[in-house]
Parts: sequence; C-alpha cells; structure tokens
Amino acid sequence: MRTQRNPQLNANGELIHLLSTEGLSKEMLTHILDTATNFVSVSDREVKKVPLLRGKSVFNLFFENSTRTRTTFDIAATRLSADVVNLDIARSSASKGESLLDTIDNLSAMAADIFVVRHNESGAPYLIAQHVGPHVHVVNAGDGRHAHPTQALLDMYTIRHFKGDFSNLSVAIVGDVAHSRVARSNIHALTTLGCPDLRVVGPKTLVPNDMAQMGVRVCNDLRSGIDGVDVVITLRLQNERMSGALLPSAQEFFKSYGLTPERLQWAKPDAIVMHPGPINRGVEIASSVVDGPQAVILSQVTFGIAVRMAVMSIVASHEG
Amino acid sequence: MRTQRNPQLNANGELIHLLSTEGLSKEMLTHILDTATNFVSVSDREVKKVPLLRGKSVFNLFFENSTRTRTTFDIAATRLSADVVNLDIARSSASKGESLLDTIDNLSAMAADIFVVRHNESGAPYLIAQHVGPHVHVVNAGDGRHAHPTQALLDMYTIRHFKGDFSNLSVAIVGDVAHSRVARSNIHALTTLGCPDLRVVGPKTLVPNDMAQMGVRVCNDLRSGIDGVDVVITLRLQNERMSGALLPSAQEFFKSYGLTPERLQWAKPDAIVMHPGPINRGVEIASSVVDGPQAVILSQVTFGIAVRMAVMSIVASHEG
Amino acid sequence: MRTQRNPQLNANGELIHLLSTEGLSKEMLTHILDTATNFVSVSDREVKKVPLLRGKSVFNLFFENSTRTRTTFDIAATRLSADVVNLDIARSSASKGESLLDTIDNLSAMAADIFVVRHNESGAPYLIAQHVGPHVHVVNAGDGRHAHPTQALLDMYTIRHFKGDFSNLSVAIVGDVAHSRVARSNIHALTTLGCPDLRVVGPKTLVPNDMAQMGVRVCNDLRSGIDGVDVVITLRLQNERMSGALLPSAQEFFKSYGLTPERLQWAKPDAIVMHPGPINRGVEIASSVVDGPQAVILSQVTFGIAVRMAVMSIVASHEG
Repeated sequence: MRTQRNPQLNANGELIHLLSTEGLSKEMLTHILDTATNFVSVSDREVKKVPLLRGKSVFNLFFENSTRTRTTFDIAATRLSADVVNLDIARSSASKGESLLDTIDNLSAMAADIFVVRHNESGAPYLIAQHVGPHVHVVNAGDGRHAHPTQALLDMYTIRHFKGDFSNLSVAIVGDVAHSRVARSNIHALTTLGCPDLRVVGPKTLVPNDMAQMGVRVCNDLRSGIDGVDVVITLRLQNERMSGALLPSAQEFFKSYGLTPERLQWAKPDAIVMHPGPINRGVEIASSVVDGPQAVILSQVTFGIAVRMAVMSIVASHEG
Repeated sequence: MRTQRNPQLNANGELIHLLSTEGLSKEMLTHILDTATNFVSVSDREVKKVPLLRGKSVFNLFFENSTRTRTTFDIAATRLSADVVNLDIARSSASKGESLLDTIDNLSAMAADIFVVRHNESGAPYLIAQHVGPHVHVVNAGDGRHAHPTQALLDMYTIRHFKGDFSNLSVAIVGDVAHSRVARSNIHALTTLGCPDLRVVGPKTLVPNDMAQMGVRVCNDLRSGIDGVDVVITLRLQNERMSGALLPSAQEFFKSYGLTPERLQWAKPDAIVMHPGPINRGVEIASSVVDGPQAVILSQVTFGIAVRMAVMSIVASHEG
Repeated sequence: MRTQRNPQLNANGELIHLLSTEGLSKEMLTHILDTATNFVSVSDREVKKVPLLRGKSVFNLFFENSTRTRTTFDIAATRLSADVVNLDIARSSASKGESLLDTIDNLSAMAADIFVVRHNESGAPYLIAQHVGPHVHVVNAGDGRHAHPTQALLDMYTIRHFKGDFSNLSVAIVGDVAHSRVARSNIHALTTLGCPDLRVVGPKTLVPNDMAQMGVRVCNDLRSGIDGVDVVITLRLQNERMSGALLPSAQEFFKSYGLTPERLQWAKPDAIVMHPGPINRGVEIASSVVDGPQAVILSQVTFGIAVRMAVMSIVASHEG
C-alpha cells in the first residue's frame, strides 16, 4: 500500500512547492521560520542583496490583482538576486483563450524556476504544481478562499518573534473568518505549531459553526473571544461584505466587533494586535489601535519579506 | 550608380537592425542560427546569465499589446544582463498626442541601445530604424501583416534542430496565411535557406493566389497540402476571423483544415508539427496533436529565447 | 527662538529630500548641478552603470500617470544600480481605501530607501517626507500645480551647459504659466541662481498678474516677452486648456503665442529654445523650431537622466 504523497514535498520529504500550511509538519514550519531569521537582517544592510537565486527566473503570475502582495514577492526575489518577470495576466494570452496549463507550459519552456501564483480559484496552484517539471517550483500567493500560506508563515514569524513560543498561547482571529484564506491558513499553522487555545470570533454569518471541527473555539461575542488572549489577529472586512446580505453595514460591524482601545483591555495587557492589511480604519479596527503600542502590523510587513525570501530559497534548493 | 542599401545592414554588410527576414542572405540567417546555438545552453545553467549586454538599455516598445512576445524579449535581454524598460505605450506620451518619432527621439536621448518594436502598422520599425543614430538598434517584434522576423528565425532554428538541413525538406504552412506576418517571414526565410518544396494551405479566402509569385505552392486542400511533408507549421486563427466574412465559423475551419492525428498521417511519419502560439485547441489543431509526440511547439518557445539573445547580441555589436 | 527647519534638509543643512527648488540655496542648487556633470558621461559609456545605489530599493509611486517621467527615474535609478519597484498605484491598495500614509508605512516596512512621488495634490510629497523615518528619502516628481523640482534642475543644467552662467541672462517662460508646476519651479531656481531678467509670457487668463510678486516681469505680448532673451522656455499647453473657458482654441493660442522661426528672431540670435515635453507641434511651438538649430529639447532629456542620478545619489548619502 502506498500513501498519497503531499504534493508540496519530494520523495525525501523536502519542500519543493509552498501551496498550503495544511499538511506541513511542525518541523517544516519551524525550518521555514528559522531560515527567515537569517534573511531579516539582509533588508537592514547597506547592500540589501544576497546572491542565492542569481540568474534564476521568478515569474509573478497574478491572475487576481494584488499589487501589495506582488510587490513583496518582487522585492523578496530581487533581494535574492533573482530576475523577476511580472506578468500582467489580464492582458496576456490568458485573455486570448489560452488555457492555464498551456500558459504554464509556455513559460516553463522559457526556463522558469519559480512561479508565484495568485488565483481566484481554489486549487489553481495545486494544478500548476502537479503539471510542472522537477526543476520548477510553485509558491501559492493566495488561491480563492482556500489558502494564503506565506501570509500565515509571516504571521507565525511575528507571533514567535514577540511571544517566543506557541505552547502556552491564546490566539483570537476576529472578523470575516468564513471568507478568509488568511484565517484558514493561520488555523492550520497555529494548530500544527501547538497553539493550545485558538478562537475564531465574529457574527454567525461570518464565522461558520463547523469551524469547531478544525479544533478552534467559535465565539460570536468579542468579549469572550479576546478575553485573556496573547494575540489578536484582526481580519480585513472585504468591501463587498460591508453592505450585503451577511452584514447590515460597516458601522454595525464596528459597533459589535471593531477593535477599540477599551475592548483591547479584555485581552492580556501585553497582547499584540495583528492585521494582514490593507487596513480599513474604523471598520474592523480603530485608528488608535493601529497606531498604538500593541500593534505589530508593520513588523508583519517587514517579516513578510524575509519569510518570502526563505520560502523561495528553500523550494529552489530542492528538486521534485 | 549606387544601389539602395538594405536598411538592416551597415556599409560592411553587418546586421545593425532586424526588421525582416526578407533581404537577409543565407549566410546572415545561418550566422544568426549558429550564434543562437551558443545561447541555448545559457538557459540550462544554474546561473542563466551572460554579461554581453551589461549596462545596455533595452526598451520594449509595444504599441500593440503582446505580453507573450514582450516577455520573451524581456527574458532574453535580462539573460544578456541588459537593463530592460517596458514601456506601456498605450498610457504614455503617445496617447498625449506625441508623434512616434518624437517618442523615439526622447527615448534615444535617454541613451537607449536597442528598441524592440511591436506595431500594428507595417513599416513602423523601418521608420524608426531610419530615424535613429548609429549606436541605436531596432528589432522588429511584429509589424502589422508585414513581418515577424524573430518568430521566423526561431522557426528556422527549430526546423534545423530537428531536421538538420533545409535542402531536402518539404514544408507546409497551414491556415490564415493571408493575414499572417509569421507566414510571410517564414516564406522568405525558408526560400533563402534553400527549402525546395514550400506549400501554403488553406481556404481561398485565407490563402491569396498571388502567393505563388513568392515561390510557394498554393493548396486549398489539406490532404494535398501536407502530403509527404517533413514539417507542418500551423498558424493561429485570429479570433476576429472566426465568424467573419472570410470564414463561416471556427468549427467549419476545423472540419476542413484542423490538424488531427488522422490527417497528420498524410505527412511523413517523422514530420514535426509547429505552431507560433497561443494555440486555439480544437480550432486549427486538435488537442491530441498539441500534446502528441510530433509536436515541437514548446521547443520553439525555448529556442525563441536563444534566438532573441542571438539577434540582440549581434546587432548591438555593430555600428550603423 | 528656533526657526522652522526646511524639511528638505537635515540638521547639518544637507539635502535629504528633494521637494521643491523653493528654499534651496544657490550653493545647494549648484552642488546638484555639479554632481550631475559627473553623471552625464555615465550614459555614454559602454557599461552605463555605477554601483552607488547597489542593493538600495527605489519605489516609483506615481499616483498621477506619467510614463515619461517615471521612465527617466527608472533609468536613472537603474544606472546607479538600484533595484526599482514601479507601483501601479491606480490598481493597488490605494484604490482599496487605504490612506496615503498607510501605504507609505507599508512600503517603508519593506525597507524602501527612496520614494519617487508624483501626485495630483500639491504638498503630497511634503506630507510623505514628514512621515518617513530618517533612512528614507523622498523625491518629488511633480505635485499638483506646485512643484516639479527635477524638471527645473535639468532646465538649469541645460541653461548652464549652453550659456555658462546665470548672472547676465534674460529668460522668458512662455505659455500656460498659471497651471504649470514647471514654471513655478523654474522661477524659484532661476531667481536663486541670480538670473537678472526673468519674464513670464502669455494671455491674461494663463499668466496671473500677481506673478510680479515673485520677481518676474509679466508680458501679455509675445514680442515684448521674448525680445532680446537668451533662453525661451516654452510650456506644454495641456489638452484640457485648449478649448475651455480660459482659451478659445489651440489655433488661437498658436496665432498669438506659438513660437515660429519668424518670431524666434525677436530673441537673441544665439538664443536657445527649451520645452519640458511632450511637445504639441503647431500648438505652443512650430515644428520647424522643434527641429531647428536653436532647440535644445533633446539635450534636456539627456541631462535629465544625469540630474536625477545626482539627486538620488545625494539624498541617499545623508540621514534625516
């Protein structure tokens, strides 16, 4: 009997693609975070470059637009000395009716080394990873509602940086959990890393009850949700959710779930506040909390470059 | 009496611009292909770069959008260590009413070395080549219905790679020959390289009869068109042609001219199948042929990088 | 009592941001021009690069579209060996409702070194400069109607190159002075550099009378405006001005203020003609003047690269 191999790993168990935090071992996640530690200092140097990926070709394939995330990968790859090609997919062959895999075959034939893929359909990066040859690596930069593993990894890096260890932590993820690939990827990573108290917090329309099956506690009330926690991860409320069937309005949401300085006192006094950005000030979080001493939101951005450098350098060093 | 000099060559007969395969000698074409051979291995290396164009500025001027072709030139220039500026012409001064030559003068004043030009008007790259100074080089990346010389050169490279020599070959170009700059450039190159049996194949509306003057055989029937050939070059059927006055529908075209595995048996058993991409599966070619053993379509893409590196390094090494 | 410090300078009086030519001393302007002299030759070399900004990250933040200006900064930064990130702000987080300063904080957290900012609101680059940390530098690439300091500096470089010195010069700025940040920045620079005779020329609707307070002579008549001048700076007539309330039509403007070869004879015989581009031939200037011997418009473009290299290398060498 042969077990189905995790498509992210080669036969030696080494990381060749980063598709999801789901299915990665505690050791693998820790290895990525440890590698990122070495890269944090690179961005502080006079010359912010290391030659690890010199002469390698990184293709940013953003089928869903996200200038911010694309920029972080662009910078991370450039600081590894790779050559980056940013493909404006909306205007490319994809719009001429070429299939996704034909596009991938073509770019692979140009000797691509890494594809960074953002797609509005869950599973697209898996499809690509299964299709490419052994020298080509895929990094998922967000697929549908499914996963956003580099965001989860930078969140883990940030938590570990400020809290040291996951084994005694209480973490609350607040907001539109149902539609968030960030929440999903964070839940898998936190669970694997041993976080004993993980809660998802929001109205019933945005936090499905079956989340309990993932080993998390569902709280529909902010007070009990963040009571005594070490870490509050605030999610972005997507514009399309703000006045739809699931939510009366952005104001209503802020009234019940917006993170204000007063409410933040329900958490531990040294609790940190995180947010994946871009922030809606006054919707999911009060401006004074964003700019206050407990927010570590800009540290997340800084660590995000190092984590993406780590992921790309690790996958590029292994063969499929 | 003084003969009009070929605008692609300097007084010593050296290549300073690549505008068309028309008017280039067999020796020149062979020299470009031989140079490309040296570059094929560069993309296989650990560090996919050579310093030939270090510190040179390559401007991608795409007046007509083509992400795929632009990307191949971007990669080729980067692997030669050049600095590449991709100009989004649709949003630039051109749209503020500046003339083409004023735009060129401006970019030349920024010390451009190579302009890669794609334009929907035939002759635009010639106009630019005649206008620029002796240190500036123009590479035609497709102009109107006129020429697409780097595509033709990569097609020649591919044929030579798989078939060794042109002197005994039968080659068929199938599809919308009338509107294809690829067909036109390939006909000139194949004729010059000594291909003795060259056929263009398609319905009367898409294959003009006067093509016979170019030294090719016109076939309106696929069977006689590809009977016993060594090479089938399938052309892309442009979307705007699929349900217009010239053609009843894409389905109709496929019924008569689509390359299926059954029909491919009319060609030699070891015939190769080429396509410039992007492919319309099920329109000009069946999916099973694209994915079958005789297709060399992805090799074309790979060789295309090497051929573009060859062209840019050759023109940059000569003065006008 | 403590005087308000110029936000462009640090406590030692060194340039840390370039926001405006207003408030910069004659010595500082001359220092920038002298530095640019060293960079003019770089673009003539075989390898057009110096390693001054190697490993530094330059972000082009163009909130207002200008491919031409963005390209010049891209080239200048690349020739200093910096890594350049071009942000398509219209499609980025800014459009997701993120505030300007939140965007800046995020990019700063990615370890940006220089922000090149173009914004349609006057003062935006000041706001950013006051917000960023001591290692981050801001270069204004045009803000509203307020300032365009690198254009003014390249104009000063061009004038000094052709005329040697400002102390005996007569300079006329012709056209839509009221809405021109180029005019405003040039007036400050020319006044500081000691130009004794500075005139602004145009119809009353486009040249406000209070300009006299800036130490310039207002002329509503082209003849008296350029009579005996050494330098004519022609401004671009913006499309939106050509048939609005302020001007009957482009034809009317050319009839009264268009620079023709005949009218240019009113200036000194060796007068130079400048234009910031892109040119409207036949609107503010006749084609024959653009292509004539007195035009130095393409030299402006060439010097513009060197001046931008000078500005970026100077600000990057100081701390805030």
